[in-house]
Amino acid sequence: MIIMDSEATQEQIENVMKEIKRLRLKADISKGEFRKVIGIVGDERQIDFAHFTALPGVKEALRIETPYKLISREYGKLSEGLGERKVIKIGNIEIGGDKPVFIAGPCAVESKEQLFRIAEGVKKAGAHILRGGIFKPRSSVHSFQGLGAGGQDEAQEALEWLCEAGNKFELLVITETRGETQVDLVAKYADIIQIGARNMYDQDLLTKVSRTGKPVLFKRHFGAGIEEFLSFAEYIAAEGNRDIILCERGIIPVGKGKSYTRYTLDLAAIPAIQKETYLPVLADPSHATGRRDLIFNMSCAAIAAGASGLMIETHFDPTASLVDGQQTITPDELKEVISACNQICRLIASPGK
Amino acid sequence: MIIMDSEATQEQIENVMKEIKRLRLKADISKGEFRKVIGIVGDERQIDFAHFTALPGVKEALRIETPYKLISREYGKLSEGLGERKVIKIGNIEIGGDKPVFIAGPCAVESKEQLFRIAEGVKKAGAHILRGGIFKPRSSVHSFQGLGAGGQDEAQEALEWLCEAGNKFELLVITETRGETQVDLVAKYADIIQIGARNMYDQDLLTKVSRTGKPVLFKRHFGAGIEEFLSFAEYIAAEGNRDIILCERGIIPVGKGKSYTRYTLDLAAIPAIQKETYLPVLADPSHATGRRDLIFNMSCAAIAAGASGLMIETHFDPTASLVDGQQTITPDELKEVISACNQICRLIASPGK
Amino acid sequence: MIIMDSEATQEQIENVMKEIKRLRLKADISKGEFRKVIGIVGDERQIDFAHFTALPGVKEALRIETPYKLISREYGKLSEGLGERKVIKIGNIEIGGDKPVFIAGPCAVESKEQLFRIAEGVKKAGAHILRGGIFKPRSSVHSFQGLGAGGQDEAQEALEWLCEAGNKFELLVITETRGETQVDLVAKYADIIQIGARNMYDQDLLTKVSRTGKPVLFKRHFGAGIEEFLSFAEYIAAEGNRDIILCERGIIPVGKGKSYTRYTLDLAAIPAIQKETYLPVLADPSHATGRRDLIFNMSCAAIAAGASGLMIETHFDPTASLVDGQQTITPDELKEVISACNQICRLIASPGK
Amino acid sequence: MIIMDSEATQEQIENVMKEIKRLRLKADISKGEFRKVIGIVGDERQIDFAHFTALPGVKEALRIETPYKLISREYGKLSEGLGERKVIKIGNIEIGGDKPVFIAGPCAVESKEQLFRIAEGVKKAGAHILRGGIFKPRSSVHSFQGLGAGGQDEAQEALEWLCEAGNKFELLVITETRGETQVDLVAKYADIIQIGARNMYDQDLLTKVSRTGKPVLFKRHFGAGIEEFLSFAEYIAAEGNRDIILCERGIIPVGKGKSYTRYTLDLAAIPAIQKETYLPVLADPSHATGRRDLIFNMSCAAIAAGASGLMIETHFDPTASLVDGQQTITPDELKEVISACNQICRLIASPGK
Repeated sequence: MIIMDSEATQEQIENVMKEIKRLRLKADISKGEFRKVIGIVGDERQIDFAHFTALPGVKEALRIETPYKLISREYGKLSEGLGERKVIKIGNIEIGGDKPVFIAGPCAVESKEQLFRIAEGVKKAGAHILRGGIFKPRSSVHSFQGLGAGGQDEAQEALEWLCEAGNKFELLVITETRGETQVDLVAKYADIIQIGARNMYDQDLLTKVSRTGKPVLFKRHFGAGIEEFLSFAEYIAAEGNRDIILCERGIIPVGKGKSYTRYTLDLAAIPAIQKETYLPVLADPSHATGRRDLIFNMSCAAIAAGASGLMIETHFDPTASLVDGQQTITPDELKEVISACNQICRLIASPGK
Repeated sequence: MIIMDSEATQEQIENVMKEIKRLRLKADISKGEFRKVIGIVGDERQIDFAHFTALPGVKEALRIETPYKLISREYGKLSEGLGERKVIKIGNIEIGGDKPVFIAGPCAVESKEQLFRIAEGVKKAGAHILRGGIFKPRSSVHSFQGLGAGGQDEAQEALEWLCEAGNKFELLVITETRGETQVDLVAKYADIIQIGARNMYDQDLLTKVSRTGKPVLFKRHFGAGIEEFLSFAEYIAAEGNRDIILCERGIIPVGKGKSYTRYTLDLAAIPAIQKETYLPVLADPSHATGRRDLIFNMSCAAIAAGASGLMIETHFDPTASLVDGQQTITPDELKEVISACNQICRLIASPGK
Repeated sequence: MIIMDSEATQEQIENVMKEIKRLRLKADISKGEFRKVIGIVGDERQIDFAHFTALPGVKEALRIETPYKLISREYGKLSEGLGERKVIKIGNIEIGGDKPVFIAGPCAVESKEQLFRIAEGVKKAGAHILRGGIFKPRSSVHSFQGLGAGGQDEAQEALEWLCEAGNKFELLVITETRGETQVDLVAKYADIIQIGARNMYDQDLLTKVSRTGKPVLFKRHFGAGIEEFLSFAEYIAAEGNRDIILCERGIIPVGKGKSYTRYTLDLAAIPAIQKETYLPVLADPSHATGRRDLIFNMSCAAIAAGASGLMIETHFDPTASLVDGQQTITPDELKEVISACNQICRLIASPGK
Repeated sequence: MIIMDSEATQEQIENVMKEIKRLRLKADISKGEFRKVIGIVGDERQIDFAHFTALPGVKEALRIETPYKLISREYGKLSEGLGERKVIKIGNIEIGGDKPVFIAGPCAVESKEQLFRIAEGVKKAGAHILRGGIFKPRSSVHSFQGLGAGGQDEAQEALEWLCEAGNKFELLVITETRGETQVDLVAKYADIIQIGARNMYDQDLLTKVSRTGKPVLFKRHFGAGIEEFLSFAEYIAAEGNRDIILCERGIIPVGKGKSYTRYTLDLAAIPAIQKETYLPVLADPSHATGRRDLIFNMSCAAIAAGASGLMIETHFDPTASLVDGQQTITPDELKEVISACNQICRLIASPGK
């Protein structure tokens, strides 16, 4: 990280950036008043930092040891003047602000009618963002892969339903992209692009999604430690896009025998991550537990742990959904979750009251 | 499980029990009005259940497939008329009741003065039970093992301090036993005997502690699945003692690199376990996270998840404690935790309000 | 799986296939004499199998419960007459045959000179296939990403070196593809396309690689159970390509503290997988252990466990390599490994001798 | 660790030991010619090492940072003149020597006839040590707990059978102790006392077993990292007993879905541990895999990995055994395993031949 003198000239800044490029690295420079800090993307271990300090206009050249730098609190503060949390604004929704944000909807979009009925339900329940899977990453090629698997036309039609539903019920929409080739199509329709847990390590996908400029919801892989999770979020940040929403959705359960929950929701990861980065962190209790009867408690627990919001599978008739019905709640149950979570969020924010 | 006719005579009951013993199994018979249900302890797979059905006074003979039977909700209901949760009353403290219970104190008892000063602090903060380790199970033989390791006299002296502190500040006291040979000594002084995570699998210790008749706080091993945890709690139950308080204290973290928390607090295990058994479940955020700065959030999250209480390491000067200072909070911080948790507990209990 | 009568006509077969397509599923039909068995790709749970049995020419219609069907031993036998192991022949090299196959070379291609010198060394040591990473998936965006990250021209140049080195030293060549957009380029040059552990779950990549028709080396993700690993291999198989070489490269270590090996090499997975599928399984002791001093023992152990070959990082000067030097052995050490492994393979094949 | 001058007097040595005791630590002093090195047992971080250096006759005072010191190669070399491996001699059997040692027998002793018939079989197959569980630690209180659970008389009778069988067929005998109270009884009969995986953390049991002076077979817990395993072996060593045989028996499997093996046999742990300590390491493929059809391969693999021997469950009629029949092989199969392992051991020892 290169910190320029406050009086550094534009020429001096460009000179430093030229030098960074000459070393086959990329320069990350912030817009606005904080642009006197230049991040280096690439292997800075090869660099002689003293060399940079000697350049005109350079105040300080710092090596940051963690594998995530651009998303670190320190860099956010120096380069963009961010506080503890970056508030990502999309339309009139704020993610990372004072109030928790709720993403709800079906695991998979099955039909226009199903989607609209659910959209209406989750809007009434108080949700802000509509989710609906069109490209579904599944463990078995022999399982339903989402309407998007039916071909380009079906994918586009389903994405249009999503947009329409969002417009009609005043909800932002989020959907997952699975492969690089679908990114541009998804970006055309979605307000937020989701990268699923199984694709967390797919750095080419991360890079491609970053370039769309759309906010990204980035899920932790179930076998990934926190440091790995943040290191891969850094791939998105390195491409210039910092509107990254992290999401904890459960890790591999430990131990022998029946596990009782599908994954282990690692709630302590939420405040732990939030001490490291300015990015907001959500939780997905639906995939984590795989159990409808645990959603209320684990939603409340996630907000109490400090999550900036939740992603919850919702369907008017959970037992009828083609995918993951056993972990899906109804709009009425969602309403109860949202109400309790909002109260807990207020309580946590000012514990003394 | 044998269900007797409601008019079964004492003689008929004894006859069934004799038959159970003849098969080299043990009979578990409840006291009071529900005594018409007899549990079988041992390998019932060898048994011909039809044989029991034929005995006079027997209404039904059921095979239960889970490895935990005596602690299951079903058995609790049939044999003792328990509802969803058993309320364990010790003095005027209820564990498993409407309000969360708070256990606090130092990781290790270091001196009388240290213990009394902490006891006073945690009492003022609102805690109900004083914890203080005298026999400390440590990963390294080269670490401080607790005052109890100094010999019988030192152990007894430290246990006496614990009792005195409990009496003086009107707190129940809990301490850990580590080996079988110390059980009787610990039982003489403690209101609740703790079995630590590392000893979860030590069935001889479990049996011995059960026989003392004292309530037992039983911690989940960090490598144990839920089914294993309950199967070993069943060892305690099988010896007749049902005053078992379960405690989730974190499991092995997944993934590569720095883990940021010492263990992974498996909060979803709490409601999941509570669907299986009538036993109350506590959480220990101190050992689970190993981080003082996460205690507030994770305490609130545990209560939101449905925990019946918390065990929190507390010290007037966390940095000065010989063991685990980095995960210890002050009495003032504890007060804030207790206040927030009490509010969350109420909110969770009646979400509509 | 649909088994046709031995006298079923071409028309009857096509009729069954039409019916499968009508149900929006895909038909998998083998070439040659075994073509009387038709596999169904997709969710057969929705299907009424009785319906198929009623079609003319159909002998039997079977539901297979595992998520991997096309790669199962049963299907291999029925559809292609395969025995326990499919021998994948590439040039004059057999993978899955009587003798173990050895893949060796640098973790990353750094220069033409480096590559050629290593190629010569591994050929002399007895290796059959040259490996060399051009697109490197790394945990940190700030680490060296391989020459391929330098752009299309640099990638192509490095791939050409690989081909040249293969031709000159009579070695097959294998290299990894990381993103979908690079698959066609890699397929043009490589004899075998590698899909790395971090991309195991990337089903769009799997599909794309399958379509190239090139043999695929498919590595197990470090957080994946065996069933998941095989389920994702099925994605490759479902696209028609059955020249799949599986590779065990270590899973996440368990427990606290220093782990001493980078991952845990799951050698028992090798014979366990080989009981399920006809695909050959290799082991990669280099990435699994991350320790040069354990390669000899773990190579021998993998062959003793039944591996059909090994993938070993080799460099004339391990300490000088840009990536993973600490797990790299020299050509001389490789020679010793190959010699011992060949002997162990013979010994294992006929234990009585 | 205190290294004395070669001319240090007995008085000077005693003076150092007195000083160690004064600091409430324990001194570990070796017998014989190497007795000029004194190990410190306890928390040496509190110690001012300079203080020791100033004492007459002291050459050097070193702080060792690992939690295992007394079992480290360095200490073994300095204090006892050990090489890479300590050879533990029991009768005419050497563990840790040039040839692998084989422990075989039933999981549980069921009757005298069963035991004798198996003992005869394993002796003929080439085994050196007879195993037979009398106290069985089981996950469920409702499972068969071994004959020892029947009471003192039955336990003693079964232990006598074990001794008799050992004498008759010229086999050493090993059996597990489960609780502290059974240690003395087991020590009276067994040549080697086994501490099972579930009791690895039970430091009071470790201390008690160490004091018997009998060689100890110490199994790694399935959730324990290597550092933890060695740290607990240090508890045994700290009590004076260094005849410790380590045993890898599988760790918790990673990932979702069916695991195909009961545990994950961590074979790379064997050479990794052997670089750290002079203690010999065995493998138990029976408990690790839980699969009879994998025993041959995994036994060969363990020896190839460098194991000093194997522990294999053997029964003349595996399907009839009360415990763990599915992982048990016959004496004939054992013979084949032993023959292959002996050949692999020779091959590994001199790879160039």
